[in-house]
Amino acid sequence: MAQQIEVVLARPVTTKPCAADFAVVERATPDAGDGEILVRVAYLSLDPYIGSRLRGKHMGEPSPAPGESLPGFAVGEVVSSRHPGFAIGDHVVGECGWTELGVMRGDQARRVNASLPLSAHLGALGMPGLTAWAGVTQLAKVSEGDIFLVDAAAGAVGGTAGQIARNLGARAIGIAGGAAKCDLVRDAYGFDACIDYKQSGWQDAARLACGGGPTVHFENVGLSVLQSVMPMLRDYGRVVLCGLAEHYQSEGPPASLAIGAIIGKRAQMLGLVVYDFYPRLDEWVALATPWV
Amino acid sequence: MAQQIEVVLARPVTTKPCAADFAVVERATPDAGDGEILVRVAYLSLDPYIGSRLRGKHMGEPSPAPGESLPGFAVGEVVSSRHPGFAIGDHVVGECGWTELGVMRGDQARRVNASLPLSAHLGALGMPGLTAWAGVTQLAKVSEGDIFLVDAAAGAVGGTAGQIARNLGARAIGIAGGAAKCDLVRDAYGFDACIDYKQSGWQDAARLACGGGPTVHFENVGLSVLQSVMPMLRDYGRVVLCGLAEHYQSEGPPASLAIGAIIGKRAQMLGLVVYDFYPRLDEWVALATPWV
Repeated sequence: MAQQIEVVLARPVTTKPCAADFAVVERATPDAGDGEILVRVAYLSLDPYIGSRLRGKHMGEPSPAPGESLPGFAVGEVVSSRHPGFAIGDHVVGECGWTELGVMRGDQARRVNASLPLSAHLGALGMPGLTAWAGVTQLAKVSEGDIFLVDAAAGAVGGTAGQIARNLGARAIGIAGGAAKCDLVRDAYGFDACIDYKQSGWQDAARLACGGGPTVHFENVGLSVLQSVMPMLRDYGRVVLCGLAEHYQSEGPPASLAIGAIIGKRAQMLGLVVYDFYPRLDEWVALATPWV
Repeated sequence: MAQQIEVVLARPVTTKPCAADFAVVERATPDAGDGEILVRVAYLSLDPYIGSRLRGKHMGEPSPAPGESLPGFAVGEVVSSRHPGFAIGDHVVGECGWTELGVMRGDQARRVNASLPLSAHLGALGMPGLTAWAGVTQLAKVSEGDIFLVDAAAGAVGGTAGQIARNLGARAIGIAGGAAKCDLVRDAYGFDACIDYKQSGWQDAARLACGGGPTVHFENVGLSVLQSVMPMLRDYGRVVLCGLAEHYQSEGPPASLAIGAIIGKRAQMLGLVVYDFYPRLDEWVALATPWV
């Protein structure tokens, strides 16, 4: 029987995950059961939420037990199918563990366009891209003339968000860590500017790049950015609260923001959970495919 | 020359105002200058923002110097007019100091309907009522089926907000301090329920009265309420941040709220400044006059 490797938990994760929390095990390649497909994984996406997810602190979902398959989206090719919706050779996105050949339930897998770069289906055309689209278009309702600021701008969500905002006529300013990431955000993603938060005085640089301050801020990181952005947010500014990645592995007190400025600026703080927008993924993919 | 009394500052206010900060002085009754009116004050409204205002900590407005006339809206009767828009006997709302007979600039005064209870023009039909209307209808966009929770429900803003929400088809639950205020909120204002926050376990009572939790919360007080409401707020709930009265006189660190729940609940936190809605005051007064 064919063997393959899979990454599982060696022990429960209680704090920031480290290598010793994981084990690489050798297992028999599974067979697809009724309604399932067997997929050869090409790419696996380890998004920021996974850390919380492994600790049972993400949206009420239980943590995986040691030895169980782990959460996270993969893109790959169907190698056998017992679901009428999929044929061998189809490319799909779904969850099948951190493994080489994994089983997906057909009703939870999604066929993707193999003529595009496969990894895009986990990024701009996948959950991160949908997150960006939802925050920019459905929550902040960005339009022409907006000044759009986003952090983790070199990441899948932030990078896509800024490009959507630009396509809608906004000016897009990114925040990222280090010159290489900032170059990527400006030169490859086409942002109008990108600020390196590792440089002292980055707050002044961001304010300047925003011509005084943003009308929309898209938060992926947490207080270290948000507390600096609130003072420069324009009156009536919208803040999409998408992620607080810097706090996900923290055991300290919860991230807390001074709320007086929300009133003084007549700001809107808008909480975003991408799950709500999965029913509209096809809409986003159709819109974004020509851009990839 | 006629004399009258006026309340002014005896010294700059730097913390929570106390009696010794004020002086009652005797002054000559002023004359209306060009474009001004002289008004006999019937009621003066000392709203929660006044404390911050006296300390120069309200919306960037400077604090009044000792001896200067103090901010705050009054309603009264015109006793002499040098503005073409006002005649003797008109009733007006405007600012003229904490005094018996005060001068208002005609272009900053507003004629009101004297057949209604005069004090209503400083409450439900005045700035507090406009605040309530703006928060309920323009920010939270309350509609049929909403479960509307508001604190300081016996106050002018909270009491009006709940009544507007009920008129729009929502269920209105108040939070107030003490049995007498709660009776007022239920029996006179017609709320569906009112919770006494001075009773231990009021949070459970509020949750129960909201059938699990509110879909809209209107915050007038501050963290002592808001931190208890956030856990019971329904998914997609809207929170109007209107006032933080309990923090206005505080010298401690700024009131800060844990923001993780805003994301998890897909909540909207909406900052409200009533100044933005003054151009629509007539609209509110026309709507609310039949209710008074």
